Amino acid sequence: MTAYARLTARFARIATIGEASSVLGWDASAMMPPGGGAARGDQLAVLAGLAHGLLTAPEAADDLAQAHAGDDAWDTANLGLMRHAHIRATAVPADLVEAQARANSACEKVWREARRTSDFAAVSPYLVEVVSLVRQSADAMAPALGLSPYDALMDGYQRGIGAADVAPVFSRYETFLRDALPRAEERQARQSPPLALPGVFPADRQEGLCRHLSARAGLEFDHARLDRSTHPFCGGTPTDVRITTRYDEADPAQALMGVLHETGHALYERGLPEGYARQPVGEAAGMAAHESQSLIVEMQSCRSDPFLAWLGPELHGAFGGAPEPYAPANLSRLWRRIERGFIRVDADEMTYPAHVILRFRLEQALVAGDLQVADLPGAWRDGMMALLGVTPPDDARGCLQDIHWYDGGFGYFPSYTLGAMAAAQLMAAARRDVADLDAGLGRGDLGPLVGWLRRHVHSQGSRLGFNDLLRAATGKPLDPADFEAHLTARYLTD
Amino acid sequence: MTAYARLTARFARIATIGEASSVLGWDASAMMPPGGGAARGDQLAVLAGLAHGLLTAPEAADDLAQAHAGDDAWDTANLGLMRHAHIRATAVPADLVEAQARANSACEKVWREARRTSDFAAVSPYLVEVVSLVRQSADAMAPALGLSPYDALMDGYQRGIGAADVAPVFSRYETFLRDALPRAEERQARQSPPLALPGVFPADRQEGLCRHLSARAGLEFDHARLDRSTHPFCGGTPTDVRITTRYDEADPAQALMGVLHETGHALYERGLPEGYARQPVGEAAGMAAHESQSLIVEMQSCRSDPFLAWLGPELHGAFGGAPEPYAPANLSRLWRRIERGFIRVDADEMTYPAHVILRFRLEQALVAGDLQVADLPGAWRDGMMALLGVTPPDDARGCLQDIHWYDGGFGYFPSYTLGAMAAAQLMAAARRDVADLDAGLGRGDLGPLVGWLRRHVHSQGSRLGFNDLLRAATGKPLDPADFEAHLTARYLTD
Repeated sequence: MTAYARLTARFARIATIGEASSVLGWDASAMMPPGGGAARGDQLAVLAGLAHGLLTAPEAADDLAQAHAGDDAWDTANLGLMRHAHIRATAVPADLVEAQARANSACEKVWREARRTSDFAAVSPYLVEVVSLVRQSADAMAPALGLSPYDALMDGYQRGIGAADVAPVFSRYETFLRDALPRAEERQARQSPPLALPGVFPADRQEGLCRHLSARAGLEFDHARLDRSTHPFCGGTPTDVRITTRYDEADPAQALMGVLHETGHALYERGLPEGYARQPVGEAAGMAAHESQSLIVEMQSCRSDPFLAWLGPELHGAFGGAPEPYAPANLSRLWRRIERGFIRVDADEMTYPAHVILRFRLEQALVAGDLQVADLPGAWRDGMMALLGVTPPDDARGCLQDIHWYDGGFGYFPSYTLGAMAAAQLMAAARRDVADLDAGLGRGDLGPLVGWLRRHVHSQGSRLGFNDLLRAATGKPLDPADFEAHLTARYLTD
Repeated sequence: MTAYARLTARFARIATIGEASSVLGWDASAMMPPGGGAARGDQLAVLAGLAHGLLTAPEAADDLAQAHAGDDAWDTANLGLMRHAHIRATAVPADLVEAQARANSACEKVWREARRTSDFAAVSPYLVEVVSLVRQSADAMAPALGLSPYDALMDGYQRGIGAADVAPVFSRYETFLRDALPRAEERQARQSPPLALPGVFPADRQEGLCRHLSARAGLEFDHARLDRSTHPFCGGTPTDVRITTRYDEADPAQALMGVLHETGHALYERGLPEGYARQPVGEAAGMAAHESQSLIVEMQSCRSDPFLAWLGPELHGAFGGAPEPYAPANLSRLWRRIERGFIRVDADEMTYPAHVILRFRLEQALVAGDLQVADLPGAWRDGMMALLGVTPPDDARGCLQDIHWYDGGFGYFPSYTLGAMAAAQLMAAARRDVADLDAGLGRGDLGPLVGWLRRHVHSQGSRLGFNDLLRAATGKPLDPADFEAHLTARYLTD
């Protein structure tokens, strides 16, 4: 058995443990009674420890030192990703990993209450500790990876993209937004206000419709489930994907669009290369790549004019009542409304990047030590004013709104906007390659798009980095011009 | 850190992996889409391998050799159980364990089709291989445990009970049955035939009622779930118990009594000693002990006259229709009907032991090499005729009906009847100790009984063996007289 063969067996075991953890994580959010929480935490910690032990074992280091993948590009990429994972796992001392797990867990608990009462002071000392440990961890990884500390954190979510790639893209968007947002608002103000969808939308009926739409978009439910959870997500494993949503009986938009969003994630997992299942190269290419797949389904496709023209009558058929609110023009005004809000997760696609840009700049400063935790609320308010011209009325709607930092997650936020931009770029390329793409959307048929994504994105696994994946699929690395063109066409063009 | 302290940490990790496997097993039966099956098999195999590795590690052997538990009876029992588990795990060579896993899996797959088509010849060669490997495994464990090969298999399900304990108990029951069964049938024939419960019983309404009854019996649903699966079971973990059932919309009895049965299992898990959670001594005392807890709730309590007198009006209130079928006397005739059937899982409590006795004798002979697989169908028919005076019309309703042997499970069957007998014995003792036990049942209140079981059974974990547990709770080791008295009172007394 060659060293590389031993490594593929080792990484398959690691991935299989990860699959078990993923299903247990889904269960914790979608099924588990509250009394199971403590034991579940232990179960996940033990599994994480076992996987970490397999990844950092001396035998793994020996095999990585002598392994050759041969001439195959996939195997070569796979071995590179194995080395990369090993470096990340061994760079941070075990006691620091444990200290982070404890600090993150403690901070996250306090944050839940602090957000409820909008009491930043209550959670501030916990966040100080979390940031301190994140900085130590980033400092430990940086030299091992040959990256800056912040880029070492970003690398954990989307390999191969760093602050130097993101900063100019975000600055350019800021400039775009300064011009585009007021114009979009003016145009919107000239339109008649949208009619709300009338009536009550029973959760069970919404669920049936969501499942129907998800299946129609290509998700095979003999390899997937749709369930309910407080925070929608896509989990599970490539042959057994679990997506969740929540239902608002007064408004079906959240669940419908949420499920289509998660369906995009799920289709990515379903389309990963089976031949490299449980190998690093067979995984999704990163969080920005993943977000591009959810947004190309939700934002680019299912909120498009042709799809809404198909969806309106479907919804009216399912829910009944007056037909006017289901007219495509009304749905587009209702579900593509621009608003300078305080809350990221409620933001429209034009202002969403502003929320991300703010967080990207603040978390960079926190990790660099240029911003102190005590100064975060003020910096947040200043940033919101500069980017969107609004000031949140309290910290609950400001720097307390997202779990990420309070759970130790630094370097993730850029993925949302990189994904949105990549989605627009991939959609433009798919539209060039596939003649009947929009005609398909007009029939409620995502088949042509999903087929293109299968070939150009899903089946590529992690063989290519984010920019190389885009280059192979679209002919160029990340280019925000396509996203700007998409927004211009949708929000600035009559 | 002492050797014993290291061992408790090691066994806690092993148990935590077991918890993860248990939840994944529940998911596979109750939630998983079919496409997830192959990956789930891998996940469970990897977790089993990791747990086995921790149990058989040389460090475990070293610690077991030098560990002292001190004076505490619980710790002493715990260390004894650790040694016992280690001996069992190390006695069978790894390649034999793997060969068994493969053979059992292959045989079980063929069996599913063979049972459907009643084609014993199709599965026979697979069962030959399974039996051959079971015999090798039993031969390997026997000297290490100081037991006969068959007892080494039984020991895996109910420690401390062997064929020499079971055989006389079963022979005595056979004698009892020869007299009692015809008398019970005569008495039953004299009664008017029961009225079936009329109408359709929507699964959702049955489920709500099942949940209500389970909660009323003491299961806290902030630590439990009730879901649906083809084969009802109780899984999960002590702080997060998962019970399942299936619903027949023409007949609510199966689900109602099935859920109460699983509730008995679940209450046992919930009542295990928290201070020894994840330690061998903190686990349930074995499969016969477990079955005693399901049967004391279902058979002893919920099919009793006072409980049915309470349940009848409850059911009528829930389902409506004519009141006569819900009269207690009718329910008792309907749900306590004696019948010489072919199928174990459908058997009444009087004939059920005959099904078990048959299997106990046949599996002993198979393991001893005194019975060849080819002769099993004939031996089965002969045994059914001798024990119950009936001959199954085909092997599907004969030796193909149960999964156990075809999945490598030998030595388990006696647990069902040992559990039924222990349930009667515990019920008799509880009735002596608790004044208002039957009055409670007449109010649909299992609280007094469950409180007694908590003290005398659940909270004892595995500190005592099966017979010592019974001795401490009832003043005597297993004594079939209480079960016979129970059957006599219920089925032979007007």
